[in-house]
Amino acid sequence: MYVILVYDVHQKRVGRMLKLCRRYLNWIQNSVFEGAISELKLKELIFEARQIMDESYDSIIIFSSRNERWLDKQVIGLEKNEIDQFL
Amino acid sequence: MYVILVYDVHQKRVGRMLKLCRRYLNWIQNSVFEGAISELKLKELIFEARQIMDESYDSIIIFSSRNERWLDKQVIGLEKNEIDQFL
Repeated sequence: MYVILVYDVHQKRVGRMLKLCRRYLNWIQNSVFEGAISELKLKELIFEARQIMDESYDSIIIFSSRNERWLDKQVIGLEKNEIDQFL
Repeated sequence: MYVILVYDVHQKRVGRMLKLCRRYLNWIQNSVFEGAISELKLKELIFEARQIMDESYDSIIIFSSRNERWLDKQVIGLEKNEIDQFL
């Protein structure tokens, strides 16, 4: 499946969340990630994210699509992840 | 069409960008919006966003799908737009 993940977590927890998400997905902007991921891996990511989050304060939204073809992506302005693709 | 919009703009321009995006879409988290929008209205939104942005610094990413059914949404932690829906 193909997912877009956005998080909004307290600044204290941003570093750990960023590191976690980058292990599973591609960083594309600020607190936004995308990528192809299996259902199992996504469950793993959510499980690990829950260890980091304060669920009464932080929030993660995951949009998922069974097929990447169903989603178009358009970037206006600066494409921020150009370097990230090579890491 | 159905879109997810995420922006990353300089703090100086956040207020104006937020206000603009809320005129066209539903705010769901931090700098993330979603909603059904016509192609024409989306072009209008992009045109207006470009007036606000510094395109060498700011960035907007728009994911679009012809059909909302093709996208699942899952929220972990706090659902931040609960109030927004009534505004």
